[in-house]
Amino acid sequence: MQQLLEQLVETSRKTTIQGKVATYIPALAEADAAHFSVCLTDKGQSYAYGETDTLFTLQSVVKVISFMLAADYHGLTRMMDYVDVEPTGDSFNSIVRLESANTKPFNPMINAGAITVASMLPGDTPTDKVATVLTFLETLLQKEVTINQKTYQSEYDSADHNRAIAYILKANGYLEAGVENAIQTYLQLCSIEVTVSDLAQIALFFAEDGQNERICIDGAILKVSKALMLTCGMYNSSGKFAAFVGLPAKSGVSGAIIAVVKSGAIEILEGPIGIGLYGPAIDEVGNSVAGVHFLMALVKKYNLSVF
Amino acid sequence: MQQLLEQLVETSRKTTIQGKVATYIPALAEADAAHFSVCLTDKGQSYAYGETDTLFTLQSVVKVISFMLAADYHGLTRMMDYVDVEPTGDSFNSIVRLESANTKPFNPMINAGAITVASMLPGDTPTDKVATVLTFLETLLQKEVTINQKTYQSEYDSADHNRAIAYILKANGYLEAGVENAIQTYLQLCSIEVTVSDLAQIALFFAEDGQNERICIDGAILKVSKALMLTCGMYNSSGKFAAFVGLPAKSGVSGAIIAVVKSGAIEILEGPIGIGLYGPAIDEVGNSVAGVHFLMALVKKYNLSVF
Amino acid sequence: MQQLLEQLVETSRKTTIQGKVATYIPALAEADAAHFSVCLTDKGQSYAYGETDTLFTLQSVVKVISFMLAADYHGLTRMMDYVDVEPTGDSFNSIVRLESANTKPFNPMINAGAITVASMLPGDTPTDKVATVLTFLETLLQKEVTINQKTYQSEYDSADHNRAIAYILKANGYLEAGVENAIQTYLQLCSIEVTVSDLAQIALFFAEDGQNERICIDGAILKVSKALMLTCGMYNSSGKFAAFVGLPAKSGVSGAIIAVVKSGAIEILEGPIGIGLYGPAIDEVGNSVAGVHFLMALVKKYNLSVF
Amino acid sequence: MQQLLEQLVETSRKTTIQGKVATYIPALAEADAAHFSVCLTDKGQSYAYGETDTLFTLQSVVKVISFMLAADYHGLTRMMDYVDVEPTGDSFNSIVRLESANTKPFNPMINAGAITVASMLPGDTPTDKVATVLTFLETLLQKEVTINQKTYQSEYDSADHNRAIAYILKANGYLEAGVENAIQTYLQLCSIEVTVSDLAQIALFFAEDGQNERICIDGAILKVSKALMLTCGMYNSSGKFAAFVGLPAKSGVSGAIIAVVKSGAIEILEGPIGIGLYGPAIDEVGNSVAGVHFLMALVKKYNLSVF
Repeated sequence: MQQLLEQLVETSRKTTIQGKVATYIPALAEADAAHFSVCLTDKGQSYAYGETDTLFTLQSVVKVISFMLAADYHGLTRMMDYVDVEPTGDSFNSIVRLESANTKPFNPMINAGAITVASMLPGDTPTDKVATVLTFLETLLQKEVTINQKTYQSEYDSADHNRAIAYILKANGYLEAGVENAIQTYLQLCSIEVTVSDLAQIALFFAEDGQNERICIDGAILKVSKALMLTCGMYNSSGKFAAFVGLPAKSGVSGAIIAVVKSGAIEILEGPIGIGLYGPAIDEVGNSVAGVHFLMALVKKYNLSVF
Repeated sequence: MQQLLEQLVETSRKTTIQGKVATYIPALAEADAAHFSVCLTDKGQSYAYGETDTLFTLQSVVKVISFMLAADYHGLTRMMDYVDVEPTGDSFNSIVRLESANTKPFNPMINAGAITVASMLPGDTPTDKVATVLTFLETLLQKEVTINQKTYQSEYDSADHNRAIAYILKANGYLEAGVENAIQTYLQLCSIEVTVSDLAQIALFFAEDGQNERICIDGAILKVSKALMLTCGMYNSSGKFAAFVGLPAKSGVSGAIIAVVKSGAIEILEGPIGIGLYGPAIDEVGNSVAGVHFLMALVKKYNLSVF
Repeated sequence: MQQLLEQLVETSRKTTIQGKVATYIPALAEADAAHFSVCLTDKGQSYAYGETDTLFTLQSVVKVISFMLAADYHGLTRMMDYVDVEPTGDSFNSIVRLESANTKPFNPMINAGAITVASMLPGDTPTDKVATVLTFLETLLQKEVTINQKTYQSEYDSADHNRAIAYILKANGYLEAGVENAIQTYLQLCSIEVTVSDLAQIALFFAEDGQNERICIDGAILKVSKALMLTCGMYNSSGKFAAFVGLPAKSGVSGAIIAVVKSGAIEILEGPIGIGLYGPAIDEVGNSVAGVHFLMALVKKYNLSVF
Repeated sequence: MQQLLEQLVETSRKTTIQGKVATYIPALAEADAAHFSVCLTDKGQSYAYGETDTLFTLQSVVKVISFMLAADYHGLTRMMDYVDVEPTGDSFNSIVRLESANTKPFNPMINAGAITVASMLPGDTPTDKVATVLTFLETLLQKEVTINQKTYQSEYDSADHNRAIAYILKANGYLEAGVENAIQTYLQLCSIEVTVSDLAQIALFFAEDGQNERICIDGAILKVSKALMLTCGMYNSSGKFAAFVGLPAKSGVSGAIIAVVKSGAIEILEGPIGIGLYGPAIDEVGNSVAGVHFLMALVKKYNLSVF
């Protein structure tokens, strides 16, 4: 198993040269483009290979976690009043569809929807809201989870486009907190630091439909979350990822990806299986090049597509 | 089993009053809004209930069939040069994204993509191209399959918006036939007549990944087709259908739906299972109201979601 | 002359019932929909009729004044680096065209352009920037000019859409001040209070190409300003106003309009003539119904169109 | 006078190297990029300089002529039911704003509006409709006027984008003829051949408000036509042309421009003055580089702006 993983990782690592590390904030630009690591885990065992000790930020991967936790607090019906779950061909930071009054964000995987979701996390202050996510992660991962303050500061200093989105949301009644509160919450969430094993554990929680020995979340919420991952989790390649890979997955510009295998087997691992990947060289839409390559090969070899 | 089906159908039939029969062409407007019928089939057995003898036209359901057959002929790589597989939040007949030169249609489930696909079917004339689909259906269904000429004529007489789409496609190099050829092919395909049992057999072919005793199509094409159904098969409710039902499905404005169950069981039926539904009272986005209601209840009861 | 004005005003006043007072902020909603007053002035004489003592806020009328003063300070070349002078069919508060990075606002008559212009007024604080406009008006009108604080507060409390615009401008590099600074400046400018005679004097300054005994501004700037009034001064009816009236004019949602007659005669008045109008009942695009009616009749009677 | 013209033309000719001849059809690509000719005419005299014998096609210059003649036939009220007169920031061949049902074209200077106008010309066949324009031109110019068949054929062979526009117009009820009829009419109109002196005579007809010894057209129609030239006559630089030149003008991709001087004087010429220009090297928005340069210099020197 470890050997297989090693082989697949090293093959996929060769594709990192086709990607580039995100540079819109300095903190991301410092990542090593040649890094690539993967962790596969089922309930019993875990296999990891690559630069597995590297810490990186969740970035957009957190969007599906915060949606799940906000839905756990408010219920799906109330969530749907604030954010739709429809895919859109627009770019992740688009404002266009928000313009006409009373248009809710199309889904929680684009920035607009994620900012709305951030504003709906329980608690009054950004610290409270972020604590909801940190506590969930610490309980799940059984370790201390922290925010990378340098990344957060970088993000915060170049957040004007997101502030514009937040003001439109507020003007249209789709923000449950002040603009600064929502923006600080959202950007702190993006800056949460994890390892690739942590990603795999998070993915496993989705694969298990939210039924973990330490935390339980309503399976209906998990199904919506995984549908969002499949239909809009991989930026503007979500459709192609669904068609040619076929797993619920969520990526971030840090090069992080979580992918969810509900049933099936990978050698000695038996579904539900969680997969965490980290390869900071990303393609033009924002997905880890090596990560997508690895998943495509893995799914083909073990017939893991949901279709 | 038959009793269960009867009960579920009659419960869902009550929701038909929330929908309206499509009226944009006279031929569709004649349908009976109170009709609702369902057929479930696995490899061995078939259960149907409702107005199961009624013939109706495939409308947009044919889009996924013609995509599959065109891909079978050209291969997925060449198909991807002509049409993307990304969902879009735009309406099914939108032109907007085609405007800038060299933009291929976002996916084959919107009219633009479906017209491109129609133009790519093997054969020179519309008759030849349509024959590809008719022959596939006749082989699969072991019956004669015909085009409803009255519906086709109606569609043809109000096809100017689709002709506009086709001319943009042609101008941008995404049409493999003349405009009239492509339009006639596309509209004849939409006017193919079937029963609800036929729909179930078609759905089963997708559920079996294209491995039927009489016809075989590459499983990779079937996976792409099913991904398209899940991400964009139910018009502008595709995201919500994925989230709250979670099956690959394709609807048409005639009130037809096919839904695909890869694995799982419905009483004595064992996956792969094909589901055909016909309820001409459609909601504001174009999906059969009773059909969606039925599938939601069925999936919940038997835990059939892919997620 | 006075009799003629009286007659024309009373005829146009009848059209006020076709309009409605703006209600998006309480301060505007308090205006009397039946009010309508006009002032015509050339270098020597002035004729006014109607509720000529009523004070009202400039609203969007100020946009052409602040553009002129910012251009006086920076020069037209630098202004053009920050804001284009092209008309757009979009609504006044649209964000759409700003979205792609590095797109400057289409013109200074839409909110986006006006906020950019507000940020470019000389001075550091909103108070300094607003003082530039107040000083210009006080010098021109030879009276004290103030801001209606109640209106300003109302506007400020519902400025989230404008804040969104300002953050996009800032993100794209088209703001020369902080967002709050620009918004406060812009909204204070909109809340400057005048009478209909003041409007006529302001219009005369444009008619005289900026050559007044107390203030002189480069004629090239005045020409650009008047071109902006003609191509985009009357919201989304600017084209129809140019076609059927044919005078440079700028309207505001308070019901204020300034219109500029460069040459020609109205009875004993000789061009350059400035026209001020105030009729708070506005049409669906935001222009005073009676004001537009009056100008159409006047221009026809005295053949005043620039075309 | 002739010397002055010579000097201004030669100065402006130097700017032709900043432009490029249109290449989207072969017939236009054959033009000599170094050509530049101008003709100025008032009621009594005419001065021309440059390659004044060269024949070229009207292209979009015809749009304002066919609008005027269709309005002469139908009246302005009926015209306004079919086409608005509002400028738009979209490109000349945009479809976007037509998409929603019942949206009429924004103005007759963009292709959509011009195709609607072409369909409204009196007569049943394209030949009849085109004859309306040819007869007008022959009466005005006192010479035979013909269509460049080679250019027409070129245009016709690459008209798919325009056909798409026409089909949308037809679907929305804004076409008064069949699609092929309207397209053939429109493209033949674009292919009418003239010289630069002809352009000057046409411009003079607009300057005289349609009151010519041989033809009379209602002045109200002329005013609307000139407003359209000023607000949308120079493609996506119309606003800048209004701001920095300030004359009603209409350009075509052949490098033709007509410009209208209602009052004022150019040496011994007295307004009304018509100006024809031909310089096939066009800028990125479609206007003759030398033509715009010449008009800017002329207007500045003789203070001819309407503002």
